[in-house]
Amino acid sequence: MPQDHIISAKHLSRADIESVLDRAAEIAADPEAVADRHAGQLLGMLFFEPSTRTKMSFSAAMKRLGGDIVDMGPVDQSSVKKGESLADTVRVVEGYADALVMRHPLEGSAKMASEFVDVPLINAGDGAGQHPTQTLLDLYTIRESAGFSDLTVGIMGDLKYGRTVHSLAHALTTFDAQQHFVSPESLKLPRGVRYDLHEAGASMREHTELEEVLDSLDVLYVTRIQAERFPDEDEYRKVAGEYQIDAETLAAAKDDLVVMHPLPRVDEIAPDVDETDHARYFEQAHNGVPVRMALLDLILEGNL
Amino acid sequence: MPQDHIISAKHLSRADIESVLDRAAEIAADPEAVADRHAGQLLGMLFFEPSTRTKMSFSAAMKRLGGDIVDMGPVDQSSVKKGESLADTVRVVEGYADALVMRHPLEGSAKMASEFVDVPLINAGDGAGQHPTQTLLDLYTIRESAGFSDLTVGIMGDLKYGRTVHSLAHALTTFDAQQHFVSPESLKLPRGVRYDLHEAGASMREHTELEEVLDSLDVLYVTRIQAERFPDEDEYRKVAGEYQIDAETLAAAKDDLVVMHPLPRVDEIAPDVDETDHARYFEQAHNGVPVRMALLDLILEGNL
Amino acid sequence: MPQDHIISAKHLSRADIESVLDRAAEIAADPEAVADRHAGQLLGMLFFEPSTRTKMSFSAAMKRLGGDIVDMGPVDQSSVKKGESLADTVRVVEGYADALVMRHPLEGSAKMASEFVDVPLINAGDGAGQHPTQTLLDLYTIRESAGFSDLTVGIMGDLKYGRTVHSLAHALTTFDAQQHFVSPESLKLPRGVRYDLHEAGASMREHTELEEVLDSLDVLYVTRIQAERFPDEDEYRKVAGEYQIDAETLAAAKDDLVVMHPLPRVDEIAPDVDETDHARYFEQAHNGVPVRMALLDLILEGNL
Repeated sequence: MPQDHIISAKHLSRADIESVLDRAAEIAADPEAVADRHAGQLLGMLFFEPSTRTKMSFSAAMKRLGGDIVDMGPVDQSSVKKGESLADTVRVVEGYADALVMRHPLEGSAKMASEFVDVPLINAGDGAGQHPTQTLLDLYTIRESAGFSDLTVGIMGDLKYGRTVHSLAHALTTFDAQQHFVSPESLKLPRGVRYDLHEAGASMREHTELEEVLDSLDVLYVTRIQAERFPDEDEYRKVAGEYQIDAETLAAAKDDLVVMHPLPRVDEIAPDVDETDHARYFEQAHNGVPVRMALLDLILEGNL
Repeated sequence: MPQDHIISAKHLSRADIESVLDRAAEIAADPEAVADRHAGQLLGMLFFEPSTRTKMSFSAAMKRLGGDIVDMGPVDQSSVKKGESLADTVRVVEGYADALVMRHPLEGSAKMASEFVDVPLINAGDGAGQHPTQTLLDLYTIRESAGFSDLTVGIMGDLKYGRTVHSLAHALTTFDAQQHFVSPESLKLPRGVRYDLHEAGASMREHTELEEVLDSLDVLYVTRIQAERFPDEDEYRKVAGEYQIDAETLAAAKDDLVVMHPLPRVDEIAPDVDETDHARYFEQAHNGVPVRMALLDLILEGNL
Repeated sequence: MPQDHIISAKHLSRADIESVLDRAAEIAADPEAVADRHAGQLLGMLFFEPSTRTKMSFSAAMKRLGGDIVDMGPVDQSSVKKGESLADTVRVVEGYADALVMRHPLEGSAKMASEFVDVPLINAGDGAGQHPTQTLLDLYTIRESAGFSDLTVGIMGDLKYGRTVHSLAHALTTFDAQQHFVSPESLKLPRGVRYDLHEAGASMREHTELEEVLDSLDVLYVTRIQAERFPDEDEYRKVAGEYQIDAETLAAAKDDLVVMHPLPRVDEIAPDVDETDHARYFEQAHNGVPVRMALLDLILEGNL
């Protein structure tokens, strides 16, 4: 039975995505039912780059399934320092585990690594490339809180560099969502991404002001605008300030607007939003556990 | 059922402390009885500051109860580096675990963090603030080796900055112990601590020489005098040397004197003391496991 | 029952080694049979020096036996930084675990540490000293792939500084193998090692060219030649280049020659060897799991 690697959300069909989300919902409704399901199985963790929430969340997911992890530890502690190639490292580590999760700073590294191993490999972020489980947990959060039917989503912030945003936009296109992209001129969707979305039949518009679309949105997905994208601090402060939201901003939104953020946030969402019913970003982070449990379960069983 | 956080030993009543120590004694006597008690439960580890013994001991405790841990890892590897607030970090991580243990360099951080989470949070040290499980394992060691009845305790070393000492002195006051504080003039108990102990009805005296009280002690609790408290190296060497003990020093003590130390030690206790029956500091460190098992068990069951 | 420490392969008799290899073969054939065998037991991990494969492999081994680990974490995070002695550290940590695995940069440190603890301690490498589980997994790989009967082994590369090589040569002497040592003049076996092997009755010869012996070998064990052993980069490149092998080199070898390497490799074995049937170095690394499972099982049961 050939094992499937999970490298990119784009390679997952709508049916694949739905089977992960359905399984996640089942698991969230009755976690006890899977508490011993993968007892004795090990997930190898290869984080060549720091991560808090992704790593902890995969770790919790595997353990909630009754399994356990074996962790390579930080790179400065590893034999990678001795000049070992990525291909060699993954071929050694696959002997210690039943599946691998890998984060690596280089785009394309997950695909390359997956070609050397027989156990399933999940990409947990490869530089500016893909991070498919983030997309899956975003979709799960949207489905659970707003549903996919007749859905209008606003995506705001850094749309040029944010990898989570491009994957999410592709997946939302599959689910026929109406999409509004809100960003400063200098951080608009890259031309290639826009073209691909159009080709895929996306229903989409671009904006520079949130006010233009806020009252039509079911979901507002906010991302961080990073200072290092700007030539100077003043320019950054000016632009970033226009894409921050607070409870007052949201007064103009639908009552059941769902506000999401991949976290960590800095100033993009003011703390007073946390107290509102709109805030779903912590729930979104917590959804990483059932979604990753579902993915691990399906992969370890060869059902994806 | 509201979950209790464990922030400070001062907030634990004598009854609370006794229920932890009783449970620890039960567990130490029959660890097999609890080996599966918390199977499937996860303890989130948030160590914003290095720790060896506290972290390993909590980890061992949770695993000896059949549970497991999810570890944030070192801070330089975490999203804290990306500027995330402590309040956000704990609200994310609580979704991965059934309880949290946190160490943080800032005094008051554990209390603040606990106000943002619904799962129980245990303070494993917040800077110069509190470290309640250290106090509990100290008390357990004293109870098991000397008993609380008609107890005389000497506490020696750095009484000014040592957080473990202040918590311990407060708890011993609750148990009606006679306390002798032995330190150089420059490292005496802070005025505020002394005042609070008097108010709480402590039976206490201060000394600059161990010889004045050694032969009356049931327990001698030694702490480290740190070089960085002194203006120069010579001054440090001179003072520290007067508060070191060795087997010869202890010849003047009761036969059943119990010598304790929170560890790590440097020169405060000479290696020749290790061979004597007085030495209980390794046993004290080992007691961290049953005491933390007891605390975790009571908290996860909502019994504290 | 006195617990045995595993400090050096030299202290293991041929019967000891065979009982580990036999147990490893049993476990590899039926891992399910031991999946819960050490449930509830903890292995303390003390890595004072970085390690990827050894640490992950011990971790996987303990978990495949149903047990778990407690990890000290990296040294810069530990109380070793506060000046604690190794003897104190191990005496504290033994209270958290049922057995210890230790790697430390100083030769002799494992022996010293083992004298302070009551639980079994396994040396996972002490500087230029011993690394007995590497030797055991090397022997297991040789036995499973070539067998010990009428065996001819070539050991090539840095024979002067490589600790794995000296232990392996001693063990192979016990199993009556014919040994050929191939290295540049400047990296020959140290005089003391050569003398000891002769005394132990080794059947051995030394060479500077692989071609002299390649066609007689059943096993070729390649090790890395490190740049830092040479006065300048040019000298290193010239020498190292002569001890690299590729698929073409191996055309002159027996069809069933087994090529091994302790990994990580850099340039010693070209990637085109990976595709040949000779390559066993990844399998060798994977064998670390059943071999360490066998050793842990025998030690925890007091059967070694």
